[in-house]
Amino acid sequence: MNCEILAFGSEMLTPYRQDTNSLYLTERMNALGVTIVAKAIVGDSRGIAASAVRNALARADIVLMTGGLGPTVDDITREAVADALGVELYRDSDILTGLYKRFAERRRPMPENNVRQADTIKGAVSLENPTGSAPGQWIDTVYEGHRKILILLPGVPHEMKAMFEQHCEPLLKEIVPPGAMATRMLRIAGLPESEVDARTAPIYTRFADVETTILAVTLEIQLHFRCIAATVKQAQQRVDELCGLIEDELGEAVFSSHGETLEQVVLFFLEMRGETVATAESCTGGLVAQRLTSVSGSSRSFFGGAVTYTNEMKTEFADVPAALIDEFGAVSREVAAALAEGIRERSGSTLGIGVTGIAGPTGGTSQKPVGLVLVALADGRETEVVERRFSGDRERVRYQASTLALDMVRRRLM
Amino acid sequence: MNCEILAFGSEMLTPYRQDTNSLYLTERMNALGVTIVAKAIVGDSRGIAASAVRNALARADIVLMTGGLGPTVDDITREAVADALGVELYRDSDILTGLYKRFAERRRPMPENNVRQADTIKGAVSLENPTGSAPGQWIDTVYEGHRKILILLPGVPHEMKAMFEQHCEPLLKEIVPPGAMATRMLRIAGLPESEVDARTAPIYTRFADVETTILAVTLEIQLHFRCIAATVKQAQQRVDELCGLIEDELGEAVFSSHGETLEQVVLFFLEMRGETVATAESCTGGLVAQRLTSVSGSSRSFFGGAVTYTNEMKTEFADVPAALIDEFGAVSREVAAALAEGIRERSGSTLGIGVTGIAGPTGGTSQKPVGLVLVALADGRETEVVERRFSGDRERVRYQASTLALDMVRRRLM
Repeated sequence: MNCEILAFGSEMLTPYRQDTNSLYLTERMNALGVTIVAKAIVGDSRGIAASAVRNALARADIVLMTGGLGPTVDDITREAVADALGVELYRDSDILTGLYKRFAERRRPMPENNVRQADTIKGAVSLENPTGSAPGQWIDTVYEGHRKILILLPGVPHEMKAMFEQHCEPLLKEIVPPGAMATRMLRIAGLPESEVDARTAPIYTRFADVETTILAVTLEIQLHFRCIAATVKQAQQRVDELCGLIEDELGEAVFSSHGETLEQVVLFFLEMRGETVATAESCTGGLVAQRLTSVSGSSRSFFGGAVTYTNEMKTEFADVPAALIDEFGAVSREVAAALAEGIRERSGSTLGIGVTGIAGPTGGTSQKPVGLVLVALADGRETEVVERRFSGDRERVRYQASTLALDMVRRRLM
Repeated sequence: MNCEILAFGSEMLTPYRQDTNSLYLTERMNALGVTIVAKAIVGDSRGIAASAVRNALARADIVLMTGGLGPTVDDITREAVADALGVELYRDSDILTGLYKRFAERRRPMPENNVRQADTIKGAVSLENPTGSAPGQWIDTVYEGHRKILILLPGVPHEMKAMFEQHCEPLLKEIVPPGAMATRMLRIAGLPESEVDARTAPIYTRFADVETTILAVTLEIQLHFRCIAATVKQAQQRVDELCGLIEDELGEAVFSSHGETLEQVVLFFLEMRGETVATAESCTGGLVAQRLTSVSGSSRSFFGGAVTYTNEMKTEFADVPAALIDEFGAVSREVAAALAEGIRERSGSTLGIGVTGIAGPTGGTSQKPVGLVLVALADGRETEVVERRFSGDRERVRYQASTLALDMVRRRLM
């Protein structure tokens, strides 16, 4: 079965706001074995909304709608769906009583507008909203000769999610054919997308029943797998079999096989190996430290670090000799290594990371162009320095540099 | 005039990817005076794509499409638009020559699939793609008795943006009626949304011709204003008049009146006043430093800082006496002040920022709950400490703490 998702609300037609409910709903519908064929976002014009519902009915078995169930005149979802189906709305007395009760419990008079929230599409089942005033609606009907399910949910994310899980999933499970889906994701660092594709395509193309999607997300490649089979177990088996073959092919470039982030994996390995780390960052300006400390519990393995933006700070906090900076320049293999070794000594951690480079957009030269980054990892015995030239704007260069630093720690500890 | 935006690509119907091109396009179209009436996202089914184009033609003057112009069989936008308009595709020999030339320049043979990128919709003008292989198309036609503009652009954001600005904006300016729009945004820090709304509503409701939108974005409130009038000058005048009254009401809480970020404003003030800053961060883990250094040129005013995650690092890098930590705890006004004073001394900057707190989700106590944050600002004469209790998850607490730190610097320098 397939589904179209509609989001109602003019604020999502501005440059400032996006429909994010559909990402959650797509994930849940996919897990039920339902494919999303299209998504649409419409404003508060009743005519356009009704035409969007009709278009969706023409191409999808299930039409899943969020938003536009509030009390104001801008909330036109109920009317638009009734228009599209060619049926009437009626004011449901039970819902109306519930609304009055809800406001009374809060010792507030109910604004007159709110009575509209009791308006129900003929043939619909009302879906209770445990945390808000807007009830949802569920319609199981025949439209132009085909069975169609229409679902109306509020746009407030936590209300929508609670109602989808409580009311809709049980009902959908009875309707959607029982073929079951399994998904999995592998995350890969340190290889370009083209190489990942070239090496894995000969494997995943042999699995016609598993849908494979490759996504590049700032120096991280994600491989998403999805399989629909007769049972969840069968589907999971196929996905796991393919994952295993791809992990064999890509080896240690695969940093996560069950969804963990690179930061989480690095901290897991640090703790498992009893190692600790500190950072001395120039061009990344604290980004490596900030990514590590974004994980709760990171204080067990991360001691801290220095953001050594000026040359003086490199000397003050990581004991980089001023003469070394004079001789090789702040952006050099030598200074990267000295930063890593110095911060390791000063912090008392077992590992030290040093990052220097030219994030841009200015400051580049022909010898040291924008995007040039040097990352060093010191462990007291040896210091590894990796040199890379990243493309993209300042933000991308910095993010890629921080990913390289984290990935060097991961590979060292594997 | 109005517009519908269509995004083609199955990856945007997964839980992992969203159409973000439409946010950029909405902003640019709004600036031209064009309203977006709907957006839709469709996969690589030619039939569904063609029906989406027909639906858009039924309700919008301009249909703006991104994606699906690549060389593979999944790229169906050209075919879908031709189907919707009921016209033929032809293989344009000039474009084909250009494609062969492009590959030859890169010393690579052109894959046979790429010839499809020369397929042109009858009546379309080809739009050159300066940085990619997919040309765009511009169609100015009559559909069911009405003039319609259809625009096909690639989905790669930087290609799409360059082509929209280079080719489409000049053409659209000739077509869109000259009634003109002015927009402006005020950004506010340190006040809750409810207070901003309560204080500004009596002002903005008097400007019926200016559309006002209030958005809360992690401890920053944005007020967006939009006015359509006979001339740009008139529209701008109304928006500016309203902005002026609101700036008077909110005073120094308004940190940006022309779109600058808080980081940019802080660095601007630092440079203007000849001041410099360094950071000593505990719970924010380098986020303040990272936000400051995200701005190009920040090295002129930002010396660097320390991420003092452990108590030992607080002593090592910011000279916080161990006895002080023992007496008051690492999360205390006293330690926040000592961090700010210590990092200022050590770095030689004129201002020092100290941040300590409990980001959560664990580590809170009844006396020092999760979300408690202390931020100190030292200038050598006095040290100001602000205590706040932030709500939200670890990421939100940290981000709000970093915003508070930056805003304290801004207010000090105003």
